[in-house]
Amino acid sequence: MVTPPERNYINGFATIQRKTLEVRESVMESVIEQVTEFLHSNRTNAEQTLAEFLAIPSVSADPKHRADVRRAAEWVAQFLSQMGLRPEIVPSEIGHPVVYAETPHREGVPTVLIYGHYDVQPAEDPTLWESPPFQPTVRGDAIYARGASDDKGQVLTHLLSVRAWYEVTKSWPVNFKFIIEGEEEVGSSALEDFVDKYRDRLTCDCIVVSDGNQFGPGQPAITYGLRGIAYFELRLTGPNRDLHSGSFGGTVTNPATALTMILGRIMGQDGRITIPGFYDDVVPLGDEERRRLRELPFEERAFWATLGVESALGEPGYTVLERRWARPTFEVCGLWGGYQGEGAKTVIPAEAGAKISFRLVPHQAPERVRQQLLAYLAQICPPGVRYELVDLHASPAVVTPLDSPYIKAAEMAVKAAFSAPPVFTREGGSIPIVGLFQERLGADILLLGWGQDDDNTHAPNEKFSLTDFHRGTLASAYLWDFIRKVAKSHET
Amino acid sequence: MVTPPERNYINGFATIQRKTLEVRESVMESVIEQVTEFLHSNRTNAEQTLAEFLAIPSVSADPKHRADVRRAAEWVAQFLSQMGLRPEIVPSEIGHPVVYAETPHREGVPTVLIYGHYDVQPAEDPTLWESPPFQPTVRGDAIYARGASDDKGQVLTHLLSVRAWYEVTKSWPVNFKFIIEGEEEVGSSALEDFVDKYRDRLTCDCIVVSDGNQFGPGQPAITYGLRGIAYFELRLTGPNRDLHSGSFGGTVTNPATALTMILGRIMGQDGRITIPGFYDDVVPLGDEERRRLRELPFEERAFWATLGVESALGEPGYTVLERRWARPTFEVCGLWGGYQGEGAKTVIPAEAGAKISFRLVPHQAPERVRQQLLAYLAQICPPGVRYELVDLHASPAVVTPLDSPYIKAAEMAVKAAFSAPPVFTREGGSIPIVGLFQERLGADILLLGWGQDDDNTHAPNEKFSLTDFHRGTLASAYLWDFIRKVAKSHET
Repeated sequence: MVTPPERNYINGFATIQRKTLEVRESVMESVIEQVTEFLHSNRTNAEQTLAEFLAIPSVSADPKHRADVRRAAEWVAQFLSQMGLRPEIVPSEIGHPVVYAETPHREGVPTVLIYGHYDVQPAEDPTLWESPPFQPTVRGDAIYARGASDDKGQVLTHLLSVRAWYEVTKSWPVNFKFIIEGEEEVGSSALEDFVDKYRDRLTCDCIVVSDGNQFGPGQPAITYGLRGIAYFELRLTGPNRDLHSGSFGGTVTNPATALTMILGRIMGQDGRITIPGFYDDVVPLGDEERRRLRELPFEERAFWATLGVESALGEPGYTVLERRWARPTFEVCGLWGGYQGEGAKTVIPAEAGAKISFRLVPHQAPERVRQQLLAYLAQICPPGVRYELVDLHASPAVVTPLDSPYIKAAEMAVKAAFSAPPVFTREGGSIPIVGLFQERLGADILLLGWGQDDDNTHAPNEKFSLTDFHRGTLASAYLWDFIRKVAKSHET
Repeated sequence: MVTPPERNYINGFATIQRKTLEVRESVMESVIEQVTEFLHSNRTNAEQTLAEFLAIPSVSADPKHRADVRRAAEWVAQFLSQMGLRPEIVPSEIGHPVVYAETPHREGVPTVLIYGHYDVQPAEDPTLWESPPFQPTVRGDAIYARGASDDKGQVLTHLLSVRAWYEVTKSWPVNFKFIIEGEEEVGSSALEDFVDKYRDRLTCDCIVVSDGNQFGPGQPAITYGLRGIAYFELRLTGPNRDLHSGSFGGTVTNPATALTMILGRIMGQDGRITIPGFYDDVVPLGDEERRRLRELPFEERAFWATLGVESALGEPGYTVLERRWARPTFEVCGLWGGYQGEGAKTVIPAEAGAKISFRLVPHQAPERVRQQLLAYLAQICPPGVRYELVDLHASPAVVTPLDSPYIKAAEMAVKAAFSAPPVFTREGGSIPIVGLFQERLGADILLLGWGQDDDNTHAPNEKFSLTDFHRGTLASAYLWDFIRKVAKSHET
């Protein structure tokens, strides 16, 4: 369920702030003090646990590592059983299992679903690594290993914090459900089936995902929005064979030329998408959210300089961050047709094609965008060529309203653990599984990335700051406490 | 030298027709009768000569055949020496030699330059040939061998006819210059230097090229126009690396999207080219020429059906043949950028590119089109990307005015030899060497293709009809006679 358009993501923020000030007095009571003390005195042990987890080469893309992936699933299940749970290792039909666990349900207590993944990217060329990818090595403040930041180190912060609560209280501060999967790096193909199959058991109030980055070093962030996506392949066919462009140029429609005529029209010269109705469902940015986005430390010229450009075509009236996080886009991700080699070949190709994507924002439904695109293609495709639109990928946008009590709880928890108030950001990309969760489970999403942009996820020498690892664990421990309190205060 | 725009290609036709009727009475005199009789009685010998020429595997593209190419040059030189000439084998710096010969210059007699090539395309997979490509084999009316139609069989018709004149008269009916090159199939790269170096010696009134096809079986054609070409590679660069289309979509200009926006604008929705000034120099089609083109046996729907399409985007107000032969076009010959593989990759590519060509008509100068394109690119390129335009190929259009006495001579010669009046056609493609000749030598061009569309040039089982071979030789013999007579009549 995407937020209805009339709901302002900032509204109610002041109200909640007042309420939380009232409850803050009672927050630092003895139980949370005991939990944080437990975490503090077990830091070395936590790092050893992380190293143990990282040493398992659970590369989901590589069939050679199938047994290792299984071993990582068992490692997670074993860990969950240490906090009084009876985890299930749910096999996937063709892939790797999901580890699922839940605490006994208590009424009147919020239910939190924790999602993460135990599989990792391939390590590729080991010679590019300063230390072997599956021999976790601490250098400076960071631990280096494949999966350190993506996602073993991050998901472990939540496992460690729940275990700490369990150690101290022999119970759980809120109801927990854990989905730790083993196919995130290969497309989470089995998870949709899993969610459908377990749907009744997955009911929850909020979903916590730590599989991303902070805004910058020392600057934690709460990501409250992700763009959706509708990704297609557009194929154009014209004459039944390649033709000589001299003998035939002017007599037939050239599919490569036609492709550029079609695609070149989808984005107007002003950077706006020209598909009729495309912006109809777009939730406008509120003044308050725009103000907050403008306050983020972000310099457009400096950002462009890192990319080697001086300016950009973009939707007029919006800042770069607004275009990146909160406005839909059209992108040509791939393009082909005719002769791509050296020199000149005078050919009219028989076909041409493109990979195209639209990044979507609330409330754009991918299916509606697809229908609008099809209608537009029917209108603008020149005569003499046929087109085919192939669906490759679709996922709706996700936004958690900023007046959600869970957002407030996360803000307080992060502030307490990181000694810095988090900034509120959105993401330009989509996390399909998050879209699926929000669609099927209708819960608020908390995206709490503890990583940094230079963690080298998906690259050699992946790392994770141990300071962030411990801060994340601490923030997670606070989060459960704030969630039960803010949720209760929000109810009243 | 391209024909000045004020010169109408049809004008003067009636005048010449009248004049030629007057001279026709004296045409069938004894010399030409003797020459044609000589050709007739030497048919078998001519076929053997052709087979001998075809047996030399003079594949210019293949270094293994270097000695064979040289052997073919020597074969041509040897043949030319049989008609009283002293041919030169002019070496090319890196490639294959040009065979050049000229008759002693006689004042008051027209000078004809005969161009052809003795090199052939590779024969590629020999298993696809019904008889070995370099073992000339007669099946039915045709001789099968690589080079049969392109161009050994066709160029030989002129060598045989000049030799016949020499045998009969011990002289030559007009002044001849021969350029028979060995690099046509690999781009004629050395010929420009040759033409510049020999320029003073190459002065001529008319250039005869037989390296193409008739309009159809039993329907000879005189091609009086070729389109020119300006061919470029357009390269666009944006960010300094490939970017994730989610995280960065909307913040930078996507070079692949920008490429489609640029190329998609060059041809308007109505099929007209939108570059300012592009049509300024285009010589309009005259009413008389349009009428003649419309009379050609050509069915647009049937033509499209052979290509598997039902319609085409094209410049409004012109027939398909007019668009093909006498109107300029814009074509995207190649297109690339980003991800071209299976499935979806969410990428903003760092660069994208295209091969693009403009087919040109008189009086469009390729260099002026290039300047117009550059000015247009500066105007329409979106911000945030840089472009580079690489020249790959340029050649002006060629049109021989239909009131040229040489066109008239060719019409009479073809009619006499083929027992059918030729149709007058233009070609959509360009023959760069012909453009070069007309530009440097300023002579009228006669394109007299004796081949057929199904001759499989550049394909397995290349063939050439022996009937067309002999008719072509006969037409060539008549041509020299008509040229000297029509030219004389035209002078008066």
